[in-house]
Amino acid sequence: MSRLDLFINRMVSQRACLDHAATLVGDMPGPVFELGLGNGRTYHHLCSLFSHRDIYVFERAVASHPDSTPPEDRVVLGNVFETLPQALEQFGPTARLIHADLGGHNAEKNDVFAREISPAITPLLAPGGLMVSSDRMYFQDLEEMPLPEGAVPGRCFIYRR
Amino acid sequence: MSRLDLFINRMVSQRACLDHAATLVGDMPGPVFELGLGNGRTYHHLCSLFSHRDIYVFERAVASHPDSTPPEDRVVLGNVFETLPQALEQFGPTARLIHADLGGHNAEKNDVFAREISPAITPLLAPGGLMVSSDRMYFQDLEEMPLPEGAVPGRCFIYRR
Repeated sequence: MSRLDLFINRMVSQRACLDHAATLVGDMPGPVFELGLGNGRTYHHLCSLFSHRDIYVFERAVASHPDSTPPEDRVVLGNVFETLPQALEQFGPTARLIHADLGGHNAEKNDVFAREISPAITPLLAPGGLMVSSDRMYFQDLEEMPLPEGAVPGRCFIYRR
Repeated sequence: MSRLDLFINRMVSQRACLDHAATLVGDMPGPVFELGLGNGRTYHHLCSLFSHRDIYVFERAVASHPDSTPPEDRVVLGNVFETLPQALEQFGPTARLIHADLGGHNAEKNDVFAREISPAITPLLAPGGLMVSSDRMYFQDLEEMPLPEGAVPGRCFIYRR
């Protein structure tokens, strides 16, 4: 399996999981958090599923495509280890969906990062809120959900509080 | 249709066209030219279809994933408007496959680039050789081929000399 194959599986799974998540939490109140903006393709997709005013993007520095750049007041700039606890103070446990595709090239580093960031994510979710991630996360209190049709096992994960 | 949808269609179409091209020119002699390396995912896929010693990568500067970095003697560094004519002197009309995913964010600029670079690509192809591109190209003497199953019209193009 080539890196192109793996990448396609990851992108297709991400879309399938986000589409599925939107059907589950679309009617809930609460913000949507996108951890990492990158090129902004996934943010653009989230905007097709949710109101862009409900989506907050956590990123160190915005470098997205012009078509996929969030409004300034919906960007939380900084290191997620600092900005997520700040968001908890601001929003409380209200997020209906948190999405993260934080993974870089190094699978081992991604896994370390996932272990470290997991405890900062859990308290942000509303009861019934979902976390969709391209990496396996390490949550104590969240339930791992079955993947929707079209998602490839191991390429995306869904957790529910 | 979101930018994520468009991107998935482009990647899936690229893979379908390259897999199809490999069945058509896999037994031909001659080099394979990859125009633009980027992250190296597509180069990695080409390596699964062809011998990596047959693949020459044309790029300004190598910045690919470590798993997808070509051997130094298979990288042609520089501006393609200079390196493609040099390759014609070195290889003659021998390429069995040329792949390009040169497109940036700006569709208009991509189209101008495709018009400008097309005449430099044609003479490199062997008779029966194929060009697979994510952008519509402007060839005088190449035949546009039907897309294989799984490719999305407009997201990838196949041309034959």
